[in-house]
Amino acid sequence: MQNFSIMQKKSAQITEVGKQMDSPKVEAIVFDAYGTLFDLESFARDAEKVHRGKGKEIARIVRQKQLEFAMTRTILGKYADFETLTRNAIEFALKETGIKRTDPVVENLFSKFQSLKPFKDVVGALNDLDELDLRVAVLSNGTQSMLDKLIEHAGLSLLSEEVISVEGAKAYKPSHKAYQQGQSELEIFEKEKVLYVSGNTWDVAGAKSFGFLAGWINRTKQPLFDEGFYEFRPNYEFSSLGEIAKLFE
Amino acid sequence: MQNFSIMQKKSAQITEVGKQMDSPKVEAIVFDAYGTLFDLESFARDAEKVHRGKGKEIARIVRQKQLEFAMTRTILGKYADFETLTRNAIEFALKETGIKRTDPVVENLFSKFQSLKPFKDVVGALNDLDELDLRVAVLSNGTQSMLDKLIEHAGLSLLSEEVISVEGAKAYKPSHKAYQQGQSELEIFEKEKVLYVSGNTWDVAGAKSFGFLAGWINRTKQPLFDEGFYEFRPNYEFSSLGEIAKLFE
Repeated sequence: MQNFSIMQKKSAQITEVGKQMDSPKVEAIVFDAYGTLFDLESFARDAEKVHRGKGKEIARIVRQKQLEFAMTRTILGKYADFETLTRNAIEFALKETGIKRTDPVVENLFSKFQSLKPFKDVVGALNDLDELDLRVAVLSNGTQSMLDKLIEHAGLSLLSEEVISVEGAKAYKPSHKAYQQGQSELEIFEKEKVLYVSGNTWDVAGAKSFGFLAGWINRTKQPLFDEGFYEFRPNYEFSSLGEIAKLFE
Repeated sequence: MQNFSIMQKKSAQITEVGKQMDSPKVEAIVFDAYGTLFDLESFARDAEKVHRGKGKEIARIVRQKQLEFAMTRTILGKYADFETLTRNAIEFALKETGIKRTDPVVENLFSKFQSLKPFKDVVGALNDLDELDLRVAVLSNGTQSMLDKLIEHAGLSLLSEEVISVEGAKAYKPSHKAYQQGQSELEIFEKEKVLYVSGNTWDVAGAKSFGFLAGWINRTKQPLFDEGFYEFRPNYEFSSLGEIAKLFE
């Protein structure tokens, strides 16, 4: 149990907004997409409309399998694009929930995954960051095509300039190769000049391990950073994306 | 959708027992532990006894988080042992299911994870393989201490000689390093002389990718090998561990 108490102590090192006065010197705020800007609960609700009583379970399985497929392939060095993995995950979820797999059923769920809704705090946060003249980008495991459609559908025009897919790296986050792809496309020489924000703890851990400043968006108020990644704690913890701009005021 | 049809065709290459007459020339049958020899449903039932109405959810979350932590750490090259990750996963599951975390509550669930029950087909299958004079081993992400306790508790003395943990590799399956650790400890020069059997599709994919002969134990009769790993299909698919010995009769 020694581990636990060491880690409890470390939790004090996470800066909560309002408790630190020095603004970080960053050149760009980079957001993860799925689970950070875009709400996977909206996929569950959309899936529920066509598959009554099974929407939540479908969404949970799709997300879990996307992650399992992406991580396994990254470990094996055998990349397949995120559109393929997402369709694979949908097919698996259909099987698990006892829904007959047909092309239209798969396509319907895939199109719903392409029209995820942004979290409520996204539009305001992007406007605030824009007013502060901060450079804003997206770095996601999704394909370029998936990301462009997602952002267009949500009308997030402030993001449309710098949308980076890990496709070029042929490795998924949390691999350093994926964050390297982001850094290269951003053309930012110093890693710590990037504030990378994600709602996924394995992604926060990866970005921190790579060398970015890392922010964890923890909307559901989990009391501690995910116990499995103690030594990769984020530099910042936010309860709403709106808090990011406050760091720079 | 081209991918899908290619992969559908490939499924015909999986040998089902009874359809092939030539016995594979193997020196050892190597089993995964969690989800292959040992039934994680028994953890759900044991957890249910102390946390009414939450046992299944606790077991699901623990398994998912163990996997997420292990894969993330393997990708980042930051190993922590499986006992630590399991405790971390239990703590996360307690939080998610709204159970107050105390040391005794964590210890109680951890001890239940150490006393998983073997699947019903395990004892008979091990006896059959022993009669055929086949060498049998275990290769698991668990620590040596966890595995020794698990096997002792289940009384699987036929397995007690060759129980291999990935600890020495400091990387988890499906990393090639983990299977390499198994191959080295077994001292088997040719990879294809090992028949590796797992119920976890990411593990089957990893073993196949490494070069072992791979068997998938698919007790719940999923109709196809897990869609996310088409190009790592197993050489054999078993509906019961009892079918393995039949390959060698």
